[in-house]
Amino acid sequence: MKLAMVKSGAGSRLVRVDDSGRRFWPIESLAPGLPRDMAGLIAALSSGATLPQPEGTGEALDESMLLAPLLNPPRNIFCVGKNYHAHAREFAGSGYDSSSTSAADAIPKAPIIFTKPFTSVSGPWDDIPLVPGLDAEVDYEAELAVVIGRGGRAIPKERAMEHVFGYTVVNDVTARDLQGKHKQWLLGKGIDGFCPMGPWIVTADELDAQAMRVTCTVNGEKRQDAVTADLIFDIPTLIETISLSMALLPGDVIATGTPEGVGIGFKPPRFLRDGDVVECAIEGIGRIRNTLRKVDLAALNRAG
Amino acid sequence: MKLAMVKSGAGSRLVRVDDSGRRFWPIESLAPGLPRDMAGLIAALSSGATLPQPEGTGEALDESMLLAPLLNPPRNIFCVGKNYHAHAREFAGSGYDSSSTSAADAIPKAPIIFTKPFTSVSGPWDDIPLVPGLDAEVDYEAELAVVIGRGGRAIPKERAMEHVFGYTVVNDVTARDLQGKHKQWLLGKGIDGFCPMGPWIVTADELDAQAMRVTCTVNGEKRQDAVTADLIFDIPTLIETISLSMALLPGDVIATGTPEGVGIGFKPPRFLRDGDVVECAIEGIGRIRNTLRKVDLAALNRAG
Repeated sequence: MKLAMVKSGAGSRLVRVDDSGRRFWPIESLAPGLPRDMAGLIAALSSGATLPQPEGTGEALDESMLLAPLLNPPRNIFCVGKNYHAHAREFAGSGYDSSSTSAADAIPKAPIIFTKPFTSVSGPWDDIPLVPGLDAEVDYEAELAVVIGRGGRAIPKERAMEHVFGYTVVNDVTARDLQGKHKQWLLGKGIDGFCPMGPWIVTADELDAQAMRVTCTVNGEKRQDAVTADLIFDIPTLIETISLSMALLPGDVIATGTPEGVGIGFKPPRFLRDGDVVECAIEGIGRIRNTLRKVDLAALNRAG
Repeated sequence: MKLAMVKSGAGSRLVRVDDSGRRFWPIESLAPGLPRDMAGLIAALSSGATLPQPEGTGEALDESMLLAPLLNPPRNIFCVGKNYHAHAREFAGSGYDSSSTSAADAIPKAPIIFTKPFTSVSGPWDDIPLVPGLDAEVDYEAELAVVIGRGGRAIPKERAMEHVFGYTVVNDVTARDLQGKHKQWLLGKGIDGFCPMGPWIVTADELDAQAMRVTCTVNGEKRQDAVTADLIFDIPTLIETISLSMALLPGDVIATGTPEGVGIGFKPPRFLRDGDVVECAIEGIGRIRNTLRKVDLAALNRAG
């Protein structure tokens, strides 16, 4: 099953999308008693509620209608650093890795977890803002994101997949200069608009978490291409690790890390520039496509 | 003005507390048209709403009634690492500092910002849970926390104090082993119950941000004692830095860092143990006092 948020006038509607991705049914019509926000619906469905089978042909879905499927996760999105072997080595060798002090610890011995706030989340086709002071070393990171269903604390690996509601695609856009300069990665990773997400959430029953192919192109040129089987810390390990520190909540998102091929993996690095188009895709889920756009900082400031 | 959340039956009430800290007036009676959650009230007061002067003697406040004043900030709390000179040196020399690779970079050149989720926030007298697997190297960090009023992006230093609504006290409790092992600090810092906060929010007009005295005792023994004048990056610099990456929101919290005297500053380190009592205080705000308590992980798991 695919769940999405679509534009509706000035607002948005939570919808079920058909397998083809071309028709949808609003949840408010399908199941009037269920919550109409994604995190609420996920919580309900994870504690026993069910969605009835849609009837009729539904409404036509144009992909331009799609918004980020989970604009308001219950807290900052969890993200995993250096979680593919080849990427861990390219990052440690890039000179940007404040988490590694030598080639010997390029491959992390424990998951590296940081966060991006909900304010960084943007839609599957939204522009990625290039703001003066933050625009010098902007890089892409295509990632599989896990959406948590049933919550829980200290979830053992063996039970972890029972807590996965579904999956979506994110681009963990990163200002590499800030990531390095500030040591902890929030300020380089949590920039407003630096987490395009979508195009929808696909429920866990339809996918094999071990065998998803993650790709990224920039202006049509293939940059990243890997399968989730290459994760250093797999999804059950990530859930076990995070849930030891804190109870996971329905709607929590865990972006599982990016494979080899990011801009700083090249010598010299290939950073994103105004007008570049980044497309992140995962087989079985879909793709998101975002264009880099210069933004006037003074305008942002006046708006604030 | 002091604003607090107090227990009320099974729920809580947002209240104004008098200068003595002994009487209160519920906001729902004082100003029925204003929001009854702290972040909402802060947003309203920061965009022009006012609270009328209380009339009458109000209700008696027993300190045991106090909850964390801001249980639901709009996103994870911002925290600052190594932000007092003497503490930056003690931390870099402790062997636990994944952000520093040599004595030469003990003093950060840019603010180190990480987060703690709302789920770590607990009340001013709540126990700090010692959970198996997380209990070996638990440490205290008394901190001044800034509460943001009016939001904004790219706020220049010179205007930053206009965005401060008030202040409160937090203990940035930390599992040092996890902080080191995971490189990024979320899992060692964001543990459920590891952010006692309170006893209330004192508005900015009543305090001098440059001259607040921050102290911490463990079982009555003085461990930390510093003034905010010793901050490496002062409050305006923190606001300027964070708001360049993302618009600040009403109710955002920035814990400004802890002074010298944490447990890992001692040789050998002095970690917190079951039954220890930690009191963090800031002159002009108040104090929070929390006891370390062993918790059964199996019970947590069943509850999840």
